[in-house]
Amino acid sequence: MKTKVVFHVNRDDEETLLMALNNMENLLKNIPADEAAVYLVANGVAVRLFRRGSAAQYASRVESLSGDGVQFSVCNNSLNSLGIKHEELLDSCKVVPAGIVEIIRLQAEGCAYVKP
Amino acid sequence: MKTKVVFHVNRDDEETLLMALNNMENLLKNIPADEAAVYLVANGVAVRLFRRGSAAQYASRVESLSGDGVQFSVCNNSLNSLGIKHEELLDSCKVVPAGIVEIIRLQAEGCAYVKP
Amino acid sequence: MKTKVVFHVNRDDEETLLMALNNMENLLKNIPADEAAVYLVANGVAVRLFRRGSAAQYASRVESLSGDGVQFSVCNNSLNSLGIKHEELLDSCKVVPAGIVEIIRLQAEGCAYVKP
Repeated sequence: MKTKVVFHVNRDDEETLLMALNNMENLLKNIPADEAAVYLVANGVAVRLFRRGSAAQYASRVESLSGDGVQFSVCNNSLNSLGIKHEELLDSCKVVPAGIVEIIRLQAEGCAYVKP
Repeated sequence: MKTKVVFHVNRDDEETLLMALNNMENLLKNIPADEAAVYLVANGVAVRLFRRGSAAQYASRVESLSGDGVQFSVCNNSLNSLGIKHEELLDSCKVVPAGIVEIIRLQAEGCAYVKP
Repeated sequence: MKTKVVFHVNRDDEETLLMALNNMENLLKNIPADEAAVYLVANGVAVRLFRRGSAAQYASRVESLSGDGVQFSVCNNSLNSLGIKHEELLDSCKVVPAGIVEIIRLQAEGCAYVKP
């Protein structure tokens, strides 16, 4: 059975995001990439963490995980309410209309939920 | 398939509750009310947030979500240990014997879990 | 149906752990022990909380819950990166190779997820 998981990040808190990145890296050390479906959904003020200007310390880790198949989804409702433009985000981020809808949908499709 | 989700709030932290309310409002903009089953369970010190005296800033949002079908459940174990009476709570709250039992039961019945 | 749940603790924060212990004790007051499968997985800096030297205030509660069948799993990746030895941990802790893998596996096997 495929290992499926969604990580949920909703605070503007780098430490929490680093824990999520650690978790995902550890996970992918244990599971072959083609047997894993790994998602991170950022909503609320956490979307700020994915602006290129904020992400210098961990941008390369995000890009590397993205290359390994992790999908980083950023909530468009939250971007709008914070006045952040799509083009400010790291290239590996995908904008989704509503993060909360995505988190629920992924669990309904069999993903485990992890809140770092 | 119905969209089913339980939000879990366990801190006496208004900001977290406001994120939960944002999430629920965004969700119900995206999903017709009759295709959604949305629950919030408050336990631990979070039950304080649902006293009428504490909730002035967001009481109307709670009432409005309740009118849209969201069920707000407050843990009686936590109320007892904090000495809070049922009649202090917002009208739209339902008291449940043990919040933790409710959270597990709802997931077993197919609800996604979200911790704001 | 058996009541199955995994509690996830990842902060070095005693208050959060105490909430988890309260939740588990309340749960086991409501459910006969042989109808429950209750797990706690600690990863990240939370593994520090399970060192005998740190746990004086709640060690007896952990041991008592363990006696009631709760399984306390501590992430070996996190122990290694923090330089904590297995023999420093409370006797009732079981070390698992990767906490994140355990959390996902337990949910895939039907456990509810709770983040205290």
